[in-house]
Amino acid sequence: PTAANPRTVTLIPGDGIGPEISASVQQIFTAAGVPLTWEIVDVTPVKGPDGKIGIPQAAIDSVVKHKIGLKGPLATPVGKGHRSLNLAIRKAFDLYANVRPCRSLEGFKTAYDDVDVVTIRENTEGEYSGIEHVIVDGVVQSIKLITREASMRIAEFAFEYAKANGRSKVTAVHKANIMRMSDGLFLQCCRDAAENHPDIKFNEMYLDTVCLNMVQDPSKFDVLCMPNLYGDILSDLCAGLVGGLGVTPSGNIGFEGSAIFESVHGTAPDIAGQDKANPTALLLSAVMMLRHLKLNSYADRIETACFDTIREGVHLTGDLGGKAKCSEFTQDICEKVQKPA
Amino acid sequence: PTAANPRTVTLIPGDGIGPEISASVQQIFTAAGVPLTWEIVDVTPVKGPDGKIGIPQAAIDSVVKHKIGLKGPLATPVGKGHRSLNLAIRKAFDLYANVRPCRSLEGFKTAYDDVDVVTIRENTEGEYSGIEHVIVDGVVQSIKLITREASMRIAEFAFEYAKANGRSKVTAVHKANIMRMSDGLFLQCCRDAAENHPDIKFNEMYLDTVCLNMVQDPSKFDVLCMPNLYGDILSDLCAGLVGGLGVTPSGNIGFEGSAIFESVHGTAPDIAGQDKANPTALLLSAVMMLRHLKLNSYADRIETACFDTIREGVHLTGDLGGKAKCSEFTQDICEKVQKPA
Ligand SMILES: CC(C)[C@H](C(=O)O)[C@@H](O)C(=O)O
Ligand SMILES: CC(C)[C@H](C(=O)O)[C@@H](O)C(=O)O
Repeated sequence: PTAANPRTVTLIPGDGIGPEISASVQQIFTAAGVPLTWEIVDVTPVKGPDGKIGIPQAAIDSVVKHKIGLKGPLATPVGKGHRSLNLAIRKAFDLYANVRPCRSLEGFKTAYDDVDVVTIRENTEGEYSGIEHVIVDGVVQSIKLITREASMRIAEFAFEYAKANGRSKVTAVHKANIMRMSDGLFLQCCRDAAENHPDIKFNEMYLDTVCLNMVQDPSKFDVLCMPNLYGDILSDLCAGLVGGLGVTPSGNIGFEGSAIFESVHGTAPDIAGQDKANPTALLLSAVMMLRHLKLNSYADRIETACFDTIREGVHLTGDLGGKAKCSEFTQDICEKVQKPA
Repeated sequence: PTAANPRTVTLIPGDGIGPEISASVQQIFTAAGVPLTWEIVDVTPVKGPDGKIGIPQAAIDSVVKHKIGLKGPLATPVGKGHRSLNLAIRKAFDLYANVRPCRSLEGFKTAYDDVDVVTIRENTEGEYSGIEHVIVDGVVQSIKLITREASMRIAEFAFEYAKANGRSKVTAVHKANIMRMSDGLFLQCCRDAAENHPDIKFNEMYLDTVCLNMVQDPSKFDVLCMPNLYGDILSDLCAGLVGGLGVTPSGNIGFEGSAIFESVHGTAPDIAGQDKANPTALLLSAVMMLRHLKLNSYADRIETACFDTIREGVHLTGDLGGKAKCSEFTQDICEKVQKPA
């Protein structure tokens, strides 16, 4: 994409604070002159021609056409039988790899200052298969499904990601001491992928041991690759180490470069519409999107501006310990990305 | 139990550093005049009359007879098909509740100083059911089994534990947004138990959210109750917050007061036999055992002596940042428990 020939991406602003933080990202992209145009779609569930409630067809068409989306937080509809819309979107586009980098932010103090890890989560099966049965009253089974195909795909992805992002080690996270067959298969796929990538270091560790070591010394870890549920857990743990879901990005990657980048925090209805939200998670997700589109110089410029704004600490939103409005935080970043480098 | 009529408990010293740290606990108990005698048994797997490899009958008989055991670390036999001996013991005695208190230790600095949580883990089913199938080549399913009986039992246990130990809140930890039927059933049982115990506060939280909040502000949590695998993960995470498995105790509780208390760290073969091991985890497990036996004054005295020794920092083992031998650390505690209170 170039300024004369911009790429179009789908923008799903989402609910609650979603529209505000989406507007913030759009402003910063404009200020930085990113050669992208946005197609804004609404994913509020509607009744389709088949009578089923689901994502509107126009939203699906947009993502299918542009293959790349940026998504704000979505409220989960209340009531039985509604599966999370977030999950529905991951599923609809077979976005098999969930990538969440967590890095300590200078200027936003937590108990840690040396976190720089990336969790790579298998995003389509495992404990999220959705297959459950009542055997007899009071006896339920849920099925964890692990396939060689999906495991091999995510393991290869983890090594390719490590290589493309200048990372040196992949750790396979598992409980193959307990789930010998399912996690055993996953682990074997990671070992096989490791053989295909001798330039990247490889080790394996039990999930419980990872958790213990992560809170004691996160600097030991680099890229971590794991089944669905373990990724859900570990990505939140790691986010906690660096300040929470308000400052950590997420990307869901599928076939042929299709991908949706999203902030995974909530919709924060209590502060929605008050110009108080922190757009960092969505902005850093958008930065991941830029790198995915090989627009690295824009990505670097925006990321640096965001980190600088947080480090300087003059215009921080409430959750970052400041008093600034979302618009002031955004303005600070806009001024920085405009400056000639 | 009294000095004239001591209770006998089974002692399983275990492998590696097990015998040293067990001897340390025995010395401290003797110094404190605890009215217990030990029956020492070996659980090295043997071939039984049926040809199957398993725990020696004498060891089983001892635990069945005395109902209470203290266990050091066990090496997991190498090779396929060997299920963990630790698990076999939990299973053999239907020890359905795994209890792991984690408390910040003054004198042993970590990134946190306000941790005081107890994880209560369902210890018999869930992801540890051992039921796995290959559906076709490359497609494996593992079954997570949740029953109302086991869930209700652990939920009731958590509230009873909270009450007996002066705790004020129980948090149910789950992923019922994903595993609606299995974790849904578990959660419902926790809600039902909460109704039976209106004096104890109750809330519920997703496992991922617990992990995130735990590393940000552990002081929010008190007693946590959860299915098997989540307990495995969260207990290690919490142990990490206070210094690791070398300083955190564990108890497995079953019917009619039967229980095995154990250190859950490894056998540390690299330092075994060198008088370098830290007996704290096993000692604090033994303290849990004393409370379980209602020998609270001995428990308090020994626990205080252990904490004081760590806080004073004069005789610390290597893993605690000191240079003392296991015997010196033990001697320090022995002197303190002997002192008239
Ligand atoms: C919202 C929820 C269904 C989701 C998950 O469990 O995957 C969330 O926790 C996440 O990590 O994106
Ligand atoms: C040794 C292993 C089988 C065990 C488990 O997974 O339960 C351990 O991690 C624990 O927490 O006691």
